Amino acid sequence: MNQSDDQNPLRNLLLRVAYDGTDFYGWQIQPLRPTIQGTLTSAIKKVCGEQVQVHGAGRTDAGVHACGQAANVKLASRIPCSNLMKAVNDHLPESIRILSVQEVPLHFHARHDVHSKIYCYRMFREKICLPRLSRFVFPFPYPLDEAAMQEGARDYAGTWDFRSFASADRSQDSEEKSYVRTIFSSLLERRGDELVYTVEGNGFLHHMVRNLMGTLILVGRKQISSDAIRKILAVRQRSAAGPTVPARGLHLLSVNYPSAALI
Amino acid sequence: MNQSDDQNPLRNLLLRVAYDGTDFYGWQIQPLRPTIQGTLTSAIKKVCGEQVQVHGAGRTDAGVHACGQAANVKLASRIPCSNLMKAVNDHLPESIRILSVQEVPLHFHARHDVHSKIYCYRMFREKICLPRLSRFVFPFPYPLDEAAMQEGARDYAGTWDFRSFASADRSQDSEEKSYVRTIFSSLLERRGDELVYTVEGNGFLHHMVRNLMGTLILVGRKQISSDAIRKILAVRQRSAAGPTVPARGLHLLSVNYPSAALI
Repeated sequence: MNQSDDQNPLRNLLLRVAYDGTDFYGWQIQPLRPTIQGTLTSAIKKVCGEQVQVHGAGRTDAGVHACGQAANVKLASRIPCSNLMKAVNDHLPESIRILSVQEVPLHFHARHDVHSKIYCYRMFREKICLPRLSRFVFPFPYPLDEAAMQEGARDYAGTWDFRSFASADRSQDSEEKSYVRTIFSSLLERRGDELVYTVEGNGFLHHMVRNLMGTLILVGRKQISSDAIRKILAVRQRSAAGPTVPARGLHLLSVNYPSAALI
Repeated sequence: MNQSDDQNPLRNLLLRVAYDGTDFYGWQIQPLRPTIQGTLTSAIKKVCGEQVQVHGAGRTDAGVHACGQAANVKLASRIPCSNLMKAVNDHLPESIRILSVQEVPLHFHARHDVHSKIYCYRMFREKICLPRLSRFVFPFPYPLDEAAMQEGARDYAGTWDFRSFASADRSQDSEEKSYVRTIFSSLLERRGDELVYTVEGNGFLHHMVRNLMGTLILVGRKQISSDAIRKILAVRQRSAAGPTVPARGLHLLSVNYPSAALI
């Protein structure tokens, strides 16, 4: 990591980032594969000459998109925020854009300080999915009881142990000590040709949003009743919930911080 | 080309096709490179076992998109139109979709019978272009006198010799005998963050829409006045008009035929 010196003490910057995740192996840096974190790190190095750590609010999986990912970086460079944003964007592929850069206190951390994150999942309901949408939606043109799904979606709200909705692959979640999360809002709605699920929570387990949506599909297909959601939460077994829907329909819309953390 | 036989006389089908042109070398079939025409031809062969000619209404360039390209194919297969559409879509990448298939008279030809084509050109006016739009718009965040451009755009309407707006590279247009085309409507308008140029004409020369838009940019930058359009048309020299704007902002919206051609 970079070091401050007497002339240039480190500053801490919060970046808001959008990306089309289709052509990346997810957020987290990996050797020899394009990732969002790796691409941002290289672009910042090109602009500032510093090897920074890009701390993301969360690690999105391969194929997942964002229009409001957040990350912080500590760097010594004195470059003004708006110039940094412009210069780094000039060194990024167009599939990644920094939307804003702001100075935050040195103790701010993009993951530890999260108050809530909002995700949405876009399902395309018509038979033929237009090519300009296909990177960003999951095409599912089969019959669904959407009203029952909307009812089921509401049952996710609250503070629950979400073990039934966590990836069975624990290797990615080895840091997790608890499966308890609070979902502040959970809403499924029709928007034109799409069925859009929007969920805000204080945190999400690996694959959790995709498993919440996959379970709503079971409700929509009448394979389980909409009141089965409570039972699936209670049993705390991954096998009780529905399948993991594809990454490409998932979008990280925004990451919210308590205002006290930013000043 | 395929042949009819006594049991299966050829039938003629009109396909409406949408594509994200980003990853293709344009419409026209080429050896060893992915093209829209080539990809459609292969998919139809896989489904019907017939090597058909896919006659497009026009050859879009590399990177140009379509949500309403038209093409006709003659084939002997008796497969119903809706089954053909579904099966061919299953053999196409998601970046190309057949939107409809209809039976048309044997003499119908997707290029010769065109009454009009509608193109639009999408220019993105804000500083930061969201990754989910960047394949489909030309980012141009610099100052423009949009009102003058709107006025200039109207001057393209009518029947004119468009030589000033034709690609200087004649190799692609060697069939062209005349530069005269009729523009039925020519409208530039603001739609949110975008400046969208929509033009309908009985035909377009190679690069013509991109050159019409490039010339409107000269108007917007005040490098020429909006009434200069008429003079540029009159001088019939490519060098008088503006630059060719990038392919990625161009979309073939629809191809219209006289109803008599279709029945």
